[in-house]
Amino acid sequence: MPEPDFDKRGGLLPAIAQDIDTGEVLMVAYMNRVAWRHTLETGQATYWSTARNELWVKGATSGHVQRVREILVDCDADAVLLRVEQVGGVACHEGYPSCFFRRVEGDVWRIVAERRDPPASG
Amino acid sequence: MPEPDFDKRGGLLPAIAQDIDTGEVLMVAYMNRVAWRHTLETGQATYWSTARNELWVKGATSGHVQRVREILVDCDADAVLLRVEQVGGVACHEGYPSCFFRRVEGDVWRIVAERRDPPASG
Repeated sequence: MPEPDFDKRGGLLPAIAQDIDTGEVLMVAYMNRVAWRHTLETGQATYWSTARNELWVKGATSGHVQRVREILVDCDADAVLLRVEQVGGVACHEGYPSCFFRRVEGDVWRIVAERRDPPASG
Repeated sequence: MPEPDFDKRGGLLPAIAQDIDTGEVLMVAYMNRVAWRHTLETGQATYWSTARNELWVKGATSGHVQRVREILVDCDADAVLLRVEQVGGVACHEGYPSCFFRRVEGDVWRIVAERRDPPASG
């Protein structure tokens, strides 16, 4: 079975989660081979937490899991795009639908999304 | 002026390019501080080529530049989302609109996009 090229980038490849219904880019995290296989086996987006250095089943604590509906791999096989159903509609631990809730506007970063949940710890 | 946290991840942060009109995720590349500033100053998506170890103005050779219409920064300030107008409609050096042209389908990766240009060297 083909796999992304985990010999690259120290074995940690960027994985983008995109809402399959709206097209919104929700977050970027990292996958190693363990996280990749766990994602395929369970159908739930699973990353490798570079902060905690452990497997991270997205939403395991918050309930905001990501049901993987499609997986795409890029031309160099060193990046992954997960097209997901974002349970709860909130991907970001800050309570926003997407982690990309700040827009660069000249000298400031302006919040351009509405917070839906209180900030959580992870 | 605020900047992404280039003290993280060895100074190279993932930067996603998304077609601002269609929402399609086009590619993932990397930015260091030099690439970030060049992008802001020129309005053209500029990355750091980890293969060539040099500044990479996307499309400088092919003409398929990315005109940056919006820049978003994630919650941890260690990933960047460029919402772009993809000149020529082709982001991938393989000639596909997006670098994510292969979908994981069981044991195979199936090409799910139409090639628009012949493969190029970069």
